[in-house]
Amino acid sequence: MLEDPRRQKKLKILIQKLGLPVTAPVDLSLLDLALTHPSISSTHNYEQLEFVGDSVVRLISAELLMEIYPQEPVGEFAAIRSIIVSDRILAELAESFGIEPYLLIGSNATGNPAGRQSWLADAFEAVLGALYLSTHNMDLIRPWLDQALATRAAEVLRDPARFNYKDALQEWTQRKYKILPKYQVRQNKQVELPQHENRFVAEVWLQERHLGKGYGRSKKAAEQAAAKDALLLIKANNN
Amino acid sequence: MLEDPRRQKKLKILIQKLGLPVTAPVDLSLLDLALTHPSISSTHNYEQLEFVGDSVVRLISAELLMEIYPQEPVGEFAAIRSIIVSDRILAELAESFGIEPYLLIGSNATGNPAGRQSWLADAFEAVLGALYLSTHNMDLIRPWLDQALATRAAEVLRDPARFNYKDALQEWTQRKYKILPKYQVRQNKQVELPQHENRFVAEVWLQERHLGKGYGRSKKAAEQAAAKDALLLIKANNN
Repeated sequence: MLEDPRRQKKLKILIQKLGLPVTAPVDLSLLDLALTHPSISSTHNYEQLEFVGDSVVRLISAELLMEIYPQEPVGEFAAIRSIIVSDRILAELAESFGIEPYLLIGSNATGNPAGRQSWLADAFEAVLGALYLSTHNMDLIRPWLDQALATRAAEVLRDPARFNYKDALQEWTQRKYKILPKYQVRQNKQVELPQHENRFVAEVWLQERHLGKGYGRSKKAAEQAAAKDALLLIKANNN
Repeated sequence: MLEDPRRQKKLKILIQKLGLPVTAPVDLSLLDLALTHPSISSTHNYEQLEFVGDSVVRLISAELLMEIYPQEPVGEFAAIRSIIVSDRILAELAESFGIEPYLLIGSNATGNPAGRQSWLADAFEAVLGALYLSTHNMDLIRPWLDQALATRAAEVLRDPARFNYKDALQEWTQRKYKILPKYQVRQNKQVELPQHENRFVAEVWLQERHLGKGYGRSKKAAEQAAAKDALLLIKANNN
């Protein structure tokens, strides 16, 4: 039981911000815990709920992708999901739903802006964990989260260049083979201008297997292009 | 709608084998799909359901570990879960629930015994996906799966040496830092007997950070011991 009436009142406002009715059967003690950063308490904090919530958002994403894009191969699902459940996107979602003001966090932690994306994403996952554990189904989550995730998934499909293909490829090789892809980058000898967009050429390998090849203005851009090439190959092979 | 009455009848027997009533609201078309290996059809097979089911078993494991071991730190949860949702354990569960006879699979695939653990685990995950999507909650799964997972989790906690610490550590570093741990193994100069149980010494690093150290009769055993040492350190630090 959450005792503090002021905290109770605040958390009920948050519930309504998510678009849920104020009478929704949310366990307020769990929601309070989900919004307690480890800097407040090393034992009574959001870490366990984050562990549950990480699985919740992955399951909802899997289900949603299967519903919206039933014809897409599973390799594509894995790639899209690895982007829409990334810290970057989850932190953006936490911001868009206005969760940050409800997070209890020590000033020593907020003083480190580099960590902000990470704890926003963690707290967002923990909130999902708390809502899931309140009813043991997705009824308190999907009504407001589905549209946000579907929008992100559509963005990834429409303009994949904005997103991180290397992460997506790594998730796929980890899941499928428990190994990481390796990149080899070299200068493209056919190009002499330093700013040329094909200045570097990258190849990505999974042990002995050549997965893809890409070009770029920088080494990083060439690696991303190679990862994209590999993901398209995986998609074409439907595995 | 699943048309074939013989297949329907068979799948209803499987439902009862899982301990569910024959009237349970299982979508038989989905269950049929979950038990169709890609060697039967490259498009109409269990792959999408496996993708969903992988998240289902992870979520159930997270929830279950939090319920049974509320005092354990999250690092320990991640280690235990990476073992109980491994292909090895999921294939064992598929066998113990007698799922294999219901799997439609081409003889070209069954001819490769090395793949058996993998497709048993995949089909088991797909069955979980089908049951989850039948009701959009865990009501058709937790009644029979919880006890099996709890038993495995207790085994891991009681006798961790039987399990694979390297996999568990790798899952943790991947999740937390998106990089893999590196092992350095050398002969232990203080030991001269070739069969001595401290013959090799392994150290495991995460970039510049020393995570753990372990000894073993073989290089492999020393690495496992180092991974275990690292997981205990992580557990002690509660992160």
